[in-house]
Amino acid sequence: MNDIITLDYESGGEKTADLIRSVLLPAFKNPALEALGDGAVLDGSEKLVFSTDSFVVTPWRFPGGDIGALSVCGTVNDLCMAGGIPRYLSLSFILEEGFLIRDLETIAASIARKAAEAGVIIATGDTKVVERSKGDGIYINTAGIGFLRAPGLGREQIREGDGVILSGSAGCHGAAVLMARAGTIRLMRDPTRGGVATTLHEFIEDSPLTIELDEAAIPIDEPVAAACDLLGLDPLYCACEGRMLAVAAPEDEAAVLAALRRTPGGEQAALIGRVTQSRPGSLILNTRLGGKRLLTKLTGQQLPRIC
Amino acid sequence: MNDIITLDYESGGEKTADLIRSVLLPAFKNPALEALGDGAVLDGSEKLVFSTDSFVVTPWRFPGGDIGALSVCGTVNDLCMAGGIPRYLSLSFILEEGFLIRDLETIAASIARKAAEAGVIIATGDTKVVERSKGDGIYINTAGIGFLRAPGLGREQIREGDGVILSGSAGCHGAAVLMARAGTIRLMRDPTRGGVATTLHEFIEDSPLTIELDEAAIPIDEPVAAACDLLGLDPLYCACEGRMLAVAAPEDEAAVLAALRRTPGGEQAALIGRVTQSRPGSLILNTRLGGKRLLTKLTGQQLPRIC
Repeated sequence: MNDIITLDYESGGEKTADLIRSVLLPAFKNPALEALGDGAVLDGSEKLVFSTDSFVVTPWRFPGGDIGALSVCGTVNDLCMAGGIPRYLSLSFILEEGFLIRDLETIAASIARKAAEAGVIIATGDTKVVERSKGDGIYINTAGIGFLRAPGLGREQIREGDGVILSGSAGCHGAAVLMARAGTIRLMRDPTRGGVATTLHEFIEDSPLTIELDEAAIPIDEPVAAACDLLGLDPLYCACEGRMLAVAAPEDEAAVLAALRRTPGGEQAALIGRVTQSRPGSLILNTRLGGKRLLTKLTGQQLPRIC
Repeated sequence: MNDIITLDYESGGEKTADLIRSVLLPAFKNPALEALGDGAVLDGSEKLVFSTDSFVVTPWRFPGGDIGALSVCGTVNDLCMAGGIPRYLSLSFILEEGFLIRDLETIAASIARKAAEAGVIIATGDTKVVERSKGDGIYINTAGIGFLRAPGLGREQIREGDGVILSGSAGCHGAAVLMARAGTIRLMRDPTRGGVATTLHEFIEDSPLTIELDEAAIPIDEPVAAACDLLGLDPLYCACEGRMLAVAAPEDEAAVLAALRRTPGGEQAALIGRVTQSRPGSLILNTRLGGKRLLTKLTGQQLPRIC
């Protein structure tokens, strides 16, 4: 078989079948996929959670992972944030002519590994090939189905007095812990695009509520702080993986923090702010120096493509 | 708001929110999407059908439709072919910097129209923007969830003596009719990539069965035949929209044909071949002139990107 993806792989004929059989199927061995039908037949549930994301990060490999791992984790996290237990993923590739098959194999293995860790099945998929300069190596889309576990989450649940918690625990570990026992959670969100500040803005958009953050309480990794300082970026607006924001009823804050601090990566979980009504729809930072800074919504680009 | 998609739309900040609110939400008004959460919470079912496809057709608008309509119909059809009633779609865009917002609005309207016709809800979505020459205007991915209606479909059901039927009825109309009452269907498939010949090859791949086609019985539209003739293409290998292949038990062929001929577009439904055991794994065309031609699997590219 050739080394690189060519436009021949696009037509649905022998080469595409080869690609599927020799690269993709072995990576994702499961009965749903092996039936090679137009659609996978799966066990269902009374209430479903459904989410999708496309991944266009470049380069495709970076310290700590690759686009394949990201494509599984991103969608799995979103299902958890919406109160679901992730069960199935669809997986679609858009490959640029010339992409190395060896790299596709690496990415497929990465996807398989993350899917196994998360307990999800890659149930169905698609591959398209586009001409040079009509793509960027590889783009991946995943859509995920989860079974609803924690109903009633949403920004409309947030009320004055609630606590805002930031945790470093990988999305689903944190979410699973919270859904299991920790008390009344209003919602959970992983602050990817636009960072913590943008996500918090989404929580109170067009509402009478305010979120006031305590700068001294916000845990920011030293390397992240240093890099942002160097680049002139504000860490509160940086897309961040592996973080979770949760809003909890005040009487349950302590229990939620304790539960999160017991999860891997969650040891630095902190109460970083509170919901008030001092200035409707605004996000306010109470600074270390005792001042107040209005954190506006992100209007331009902060960082290059990260997810 | 600006006329074109710029990389600012990528960051998750104000411009992205504008895009979602002013272009996308109005097109797809439904409660699941308006919650704007990480994942949509949906009613489920005991057994699900799950399918995905990416759409990279260029140009994005063509006689009879556009990439938006195609992205709905393609996935909706696949859910029907797998024996499901389509219920929910996810919708992901990868937009190239410079794409006209006016064109995105047209495509969004097209998607909304087709989704309404098909009775599916656009439940969740995503938008990514990439730099010039890293995309091609617009790529769309849809993933679909359906509720299983006709269990037990699959190529492993095909047996010697079965009839092969080709219908012009738009995939879901045909499939719905067959699932409702018409008798024993082994499987249904819409012959997109690689055409009728490639799809039939998939039915009997690595099996002891043969499919023998009767050239005189195959309905091919005159314009399609003329275009293929001109371009030196074989219509049996051309990707075709709006067609359906079904394999039926011989005692039910007549009922299946009758049912299909009553559906819109299905008037020319024809029995085009039979499953035998004359030459394992082969697709044979019994020609008008009384000869036999072996239809091999497609090895190269037949047509430019069509879906």
